[in-house]
Formats: sequence, structure tokens, C-alpha cells
Amino acid sequence: MPTLVGVPFTQRSEATRTSILTAARTLLAERGFEATTIRAVAARAGIDPSMVMRYYGSKDGLFRASVELDLRLDLVPREPLDGVGAALARHFLSRWEGDLADEAITLLLRSAGTTPMAAEQLRTIFDEQVAGFVGGVIPGDRAEAVHRAGLVSTQLLGLALTRYVLELPPVVAMDAGTVVASVGPVLQHHLTGAVAEPTPVR
Amino acid sequence: MPTLVGVPFTQRSEATRTSILTAARTLLAERGFEATTIRAVAARAGIDPSMVMRYYGSKDGLFRASVELDLRLDLVPREPLDGVGAALARHFLSRWEGDLADEAITLLLRSAGTTPMAAEQLRTIFDEQVAGFVGGVIPGDRAEAVHRAGLVSTQLLGLALTRYVLELPPVVAMDAGTVVASVGPVLQHHLTGAVAEPTPVR
Repeated sequence: MPTLVGVPFTQRSEATRTSILTAARTLLAERGFEATTIRAVAARAGIDPSMVMRYYGSKDGLFRASVELDLRLDLVPREPLDGVGAALARHFLSRWEGDLADEAITLLLRSAGTTPMAAEQLRTIFDEQVAGFVGGVIPGDRAEAVHRAGLVSTQLLGLALTRYVLELPPVVAMDAGTVVASVGPVLQHHLTGAVAEPTPVR
Repeated sequence: MPTLVGVPFTQRSEATRTSILTAARTLLAERGFEATTIRAVAARAGIDPSMVMRYYGSKDGLFRASVELDLRLDLVPREPLDGVGAALARHFLSRWEGDLADEAITLLLRSAGTTPMAAEQLRTIFDEQVAGFVGGVIPGDRAEAVHRAGLVSTQLLGLALTRYVLELPPVVAMDAGTVVASVGPVLQHHLTGAVAEPTPVR
């Protein structure tokens, strides 16, 4: 609802938050977590550092908000069941580099090795989003869904790591159709293939 | 050959190099690349910083030597062809957490997101070792081997990322036999499955 001073408070507040998060993501991507300061984020967003503290409490709080992300797995079609692997691969590309892309997801993966908070955030996303999605797709108990979601994550996050962080030439070179055709069947196997019987090692 | 002063020079030199690399790996694992100094490495190894410079030239040179690694893919049996996926999964576990384990491999993966040199080193290892191994296993031209090696790497490095860096609970919980049974067939698919026809995406 408009107010006498033009823009209602909540809208202004939202715009400020957005500009803080945009500045934070840019600096985090450029410098990493250790070297990014509240002061630098505020300077880049063109506001006072006290505003950043008011909204996010601390550098940790700001980092968490910067990399909070929704994989939007609700958008992946769950039928037909034997097409979920390919649908997941297609969604993944859209989320990382297509219509649904943002910087947070790569930033989080990039930071995971050196910033424990990033690894923790990825574990939470796994638990709340990936395992939840898999549980909704396959019949079976929660333990099986979590196990399969773990396997799905090995392939999906490995694709993200090699394509966006390490930039291995043949993985970067694949067009979207090739990624879906190559990785889709593997995701399908992890989702609905026979649960493998452990075999003795050595 | 023993000398008059006891230990021959080359042996002493080798021992010094080993203690420098051990100190460097420990500090790199604890603090990351940015915060690790030549001085701190020398102090930990109990030698003079000038010795570190004498052997490795610079901090970059020391880092490169600390994470130089041989995946020992020569040890993976290449026959029967339909067992190479499982053999590769089994070797991987041995190299990361078994008889052949060392710290360098996890350190390198951990640093890849924030230290460009680590990502570069991983690209070199991919090109010289993984692509070479795959080329030796499958018939076909070099381009196909490189493409398949890229796919193999998405799954292998994704397993390493989720098991040793992110520590996703279900991936950490799998025993060795389950890893081989779950990931072996996928590696086999990437190695020898039909090369997928690209499908249009949207």
C-alpha cells in the first residue's frame, strides 16, 4: 500500500535487502568468505554498514542469507517414473545455467571446501530438498530414499563440480542435450535401479 | 652409498623434502592456501625457511609439489572389460581411504573452489591420468575417450566431494562394498555404455 513518502517501508526494505545480497554474492564470488567484510559489502551496495548488521546480524548471517537457496525441485515432473532421471538432469541445467540460474548455487559449491558453513548449508539442502524430492518420487521407506538421494547427489554435484568449478574441458563442452542423454540414465539408475547388494571389497 | 659423514647427501635431501611436504600438507589442510606461509611450513618442519625456498622456489612451487599426485590408475585391472567400472570404484576407495591413501588428494579437491592453481592441477591430472586410462580401456578415438573420461570424472569426483568434503551422511555411511556395488555400474555405463544421442532440451 503506498504511503505519503512514496514507497511503502516494506518495499524499500526489500530493495535494500536485495542490493545487500547482490553485493555480498559478487564479493564472495570474487574474494571468498574470509576476505569479504561487512564494510566492503555495504560500500558496494552504497549503504551504511550498520544497515547490513541490522538486517543480517553478523557476517555469518549475511553469508547464510547469500547462499540460501531453493533448488526448485518442485518443478521436476515426477511422471512417468522412468523419465525422472532425464527430467532431473534437464532441471539441473536450467537451475545452474538456464532460466532459473543464480550465482548462489555455484558460490556455495566453490566455498564448500574451505568454509565449513557452506558445507553445512549443502548438507541441509541435501536433507530438506534432495532427500525430500527422492522420497516423493520412489516408493519405499525414508531410509531408502535418503540412501538413493545420497547416490543421486554424488552424480549431480559431481556434474556441477566438474562443469562449473573445475571446468574440465569435455564436461564444459557438452551441450545440454548431451548432458541429459549421458547423465539422465545414471540418475535414473540411482533413483529406481535395483538397490545394489554390497559386494565384499578384497 | 654411505659417506664419511654418515648419511649420504641424497638421502638427507630426500628426508628434508619429505618433512617439508608433510608440514606443508598439514598446514594447507588446516588453514588453506592463502593463510599458509613458507615461514610457518619451515617452522613446523624444524628447518630454516631458506631451505624451503631452495627446494621449491616459491609458495606456488611448494603448493604444486604438495598436491602432486599419481592416481595409480595403472593398478586398476582392465580385464574383463565389463568389470572395469567396479574395479575403478574399488581402486578409488583404496586410493582415498585405503592402502594407497594420502592427504594430497582430498586437499586438492578441498582447495579447488578457491585456489585456481588447485583447479588447474586437477585438470592436468584429468588430462594426463584419467583420460589416458580410459583411452587404454576402450576402443575408439581419443575424442571419445576424453568425452567418456569427462563423464567418469563427474561420478568419481562427485563421490569424493560428497564423501570426503561435504560428508553427506548417507554417502559417508556406505561401506566399501556398497560403494562398489552402487557406483561400479554407473562408471561402467560411462566407460562402455552406448554413447548417448543428444536429445533436444526444451
